[in-house]
Amino acid sequence: MRVEVVNIGTELLLGKVTNTHAGYFGEELFKLGLRIQRQTTIPDDDAIRTVLKEAFPRTDVILVTGGLGPTSDDITREVVAEMLGRKLILDQGIVDDLKAFFDNRGYEMSSSNERQAMVPEGAVVLDNPNGTAPGLYVPAVESEGTPHLFLLPGPPRELRPMTANLVLPKLVELLGPENAPETWHNFRIYGAGESAIADNLEPKLESIENLELGYCARLGEVDLRLIGPQQSIDQAADIIRAEYAREIIAESEESIESVIVRLLSDRHETVATAESCTGGQIANTITNAAGSSGVFHRGYVTYANSAKAELLGVPAELIVKHGAVSDEVVRAMAEGCLARSGADHALAVSGIAGPGGGSEEKPVGTVFIALASKGHDTFSKRHFTPADRISFKMRVTRLTLDLLRQHLAGFQLIA
Amino acid sequence: MRVEVVNIGTELLLGKVTNTHAGYFGEELFKLGLRIQRQTTIPDDDAIRTVLKEAFPRTDVILVTGGLGPTSDDITREVVAEMLGRKLILDQGIVDDLKAFFDNRGYEMSSSNERQAMVPEGAVVLDNPNGTAPGLYVPAVESEGTPHLFLLPGPPRELRPMTANLVLPKLVELLGPENAPETWHNFRIYGAGESAIADNLEPKLESIENLELGYCARLGEVDLRLIGPQQSIDQAADIIRAEYAREIIAESEESIESVIVRLLSDRHETVATAESCTGGQIANTITNAAGSSGVFHRGYVTYANSAKAELLGVPAELIVKHGAVSDEVVRAMAEGCLARSGADHALAVSGIAGPGGGSEEKPVGTVFIALASKGHDTFSKRHFTPADRISFKMRVTRLTLDLLRQHLAGFQLIA
Repeated sequence: MRVEVVNIGTELLLGKVTNTHAGYFGEELFKLGLRIQRQTTIPDDDAIRTVLKEAFPRTDVILVTGGLGPTSDDITREVVAEMLGRKLILDQGIVDDLKAFFDNRGYEMSSSNERQAMVPEGAVVLDNPNGTAPGLYVPAVESEGTPHLFLLPGPPRELRPMTANLVLPKLVELLGPENAPETWHNFRIYGAGESAIADNLEPKLESIENLELGYCARLGEVDLRLIGPQQSIDQAADIIRAEYAREIIAESEESIESVIVRLLSDRHETVATAESCTGGQIANTITNAAGSSGVFHRGYVTYANSAKAELLGVPAELIVKHGAVSDEVVRAMAEGCLARSGADHALAVSGIAGPGGGSEEKPVGTVFIALASKGHDTFSKRHFTPADRISFKMRVTRLTLDLLRQHLAGFQLIA
Repeated sequence: MRVEVVNIGTELLLGKVTNTHAGYFGEELFKLGLRIQRQTTIPDDDAIRTVLKEAFPRTDVILVTGGLGPTSDDITREVVAEMLGRKLILDQGIVDDLKAFFDNRGYEMSSSNERQAMVPEGAVVLDNPNGTAPGLYVPAVESEGTPHLFLLPGPPRELRPMTANLVLPKLVELLGPENAPETWHNFRIYGAGESAIADNLEPKLESIENLELGYCARLGEVDLRLIGPQQSIDQAADIIRAEYAREIIAESEESIESVIVRLLSDRHETVATAESCTGGQIANTITNAAGSSGVFHRGYVTYANSAKAELLGVPAELIVKHGAVSDEVVRAMAEGCLARSGADHALAVSGIAGPGGGSEEKPVGTVFIALASKGHDTFSKRHFTPADRISFKMRVTRLTLDLLRQHLAGFQLIA
């Protein structure tokens, strides 16, 4: 079943409001095994006419949002009636609901609201308990080549309950029992690039039947999604687990910070942080995970050398001799953080975010990261990841969190 | 000049990633006096062919994002070359740049990356310092009825600098001097809502000729953009400055952290942070601004009570008596931070991010924030801003930074 989404709203094209409709529908439809073939945003003008005309022959379902308001630029109802050659009829049930809606709020109903009660012949009214504009469902007419049309309100607060309660169940009904949704499985991978993964895996998975791969890369993390029959997914998953044992953060969409908080909670252990160039982002990321207060008690942001000495006990001579951005200093930061915080694990970073501060030996983008854990040798590593300041901080944060994730997952760290 | 936007990316239709491209382009084009006529999202498949074919005759410019990656589903280059009847040519400059990009990071270039160096004849390469996929600009050919095509990378971190540095200037050039964008002026306002600003200002600005107002709200910050002839802008700006003297962060698009770093640098002063519920986000935000190392030397993330006592000297009795989330404790945190860090200003926060930890007296969303400054009485304030954990942290971070901004800008803080 082919589905398209059409979002009407000038504000969506001016950068004033982010269009979250496509993402919401995408996620909900995916669970039904449906994909959106195309999503189009148009202004509040008669572009709706062209867009529907183009979409009618190539799709089975169109979800339209917006253009159901009471003002004169809300023309979705009129255009649809005209295109289908149906009359617009005043629906007394809607008029009564609108009156009640306004009465309840102590307002008088404006005469322009009556436009919202005009319904194309043959349409089913979709109740909107959260606003004034009811939705409309116009069933497909095979002989006329028109798809199923859902006309839905624009505000997410009205749209989402209506979709969940009325639209999705109708779609399941239209799909029929023979089209039960496909299964899918997600691998979240860190430490291997999207193209390297594709180059490596695609030949190995080629022979598996009806397997579809989806990739999504973000900040060095790759979501690899397998879609297809369960047997094919199982077969592919075994191969992927063998190839990326170390790099798989989660077989789900769990974030790396949430994985860390979960692994630490399971072991009743804690982590503390000592950050220079990331400026608090590692602590900030860990504390984004619910439940982090059980495993994270404190963090030090030691931007200045004096703070590294005072708060972490890094010897001033070490900084003078090797520089604040050095293997020696980052190890001392991690070890000082471990000792002073009493935590079971301590993460430390020191690097050059730029734009200033680089040298020939240590250019902007150079960073040293370290993990000290009770009863283990301190691990440290130099990385070079030049980028703008904010991206640099993000990348270093993930590199550092992944050290702890690998350690907690039982891997020997690789220098 | 008619502009359309086409976003390619299966993930944008699966709800995994929110499509922020349309909003970004909408905002930037608005500054040039251009509006997006239509925005379309399609999966990584050959839908790009149909979409471009439909768009060619009805528009002057198409901005395409995505589909420039190294994998086999990235076919934008091929489709465009085919539709324009041009050959794809290996661009040695791109190959060299790609090799350097991977060399710098200590990786070997994958053979699939070579696809990214294939360029349709006659296209102009748009440099991408932030990723592997260069952009391409294919000028319009009037005799063939093809519009100006910009093929751009999908990741915002790559797309946005490329758009700002290369695409927008080219659009200005294409517009020509007779269509030079109108002047505009931005006010960044914090502490007043978008609709409240509109209700207040619009009657006052109504009589000013040819003045257009644009709003963009984000995290409590509102960008209010004035567009029109210089004289009208000047007239309106005077009124806005009088109405929102305290709330104007900047008359530009400068971030609040950058404003703070600039004001502190001017005064040769420093700030330190003591964070509980924000978990390092205040320090992280300050250190996002270039030059922050001159004014920010250290931060404390004191999530656990023991950390508040040890690192900031908050008396344990105070925490027992009033609770960690209290006016008394947040003031002690700020004052302890000021004394121990030696900074000129200290910001402190303690609150309940949730989902757990709330009580009837102090429900989830309650937060106390404080500013201690040398030679000033400590200021503190209770706020209630219930939201999901991550939004809560962001809002509290901005509330707290704005305390310091107001203080540095010379305003008496209002309890």
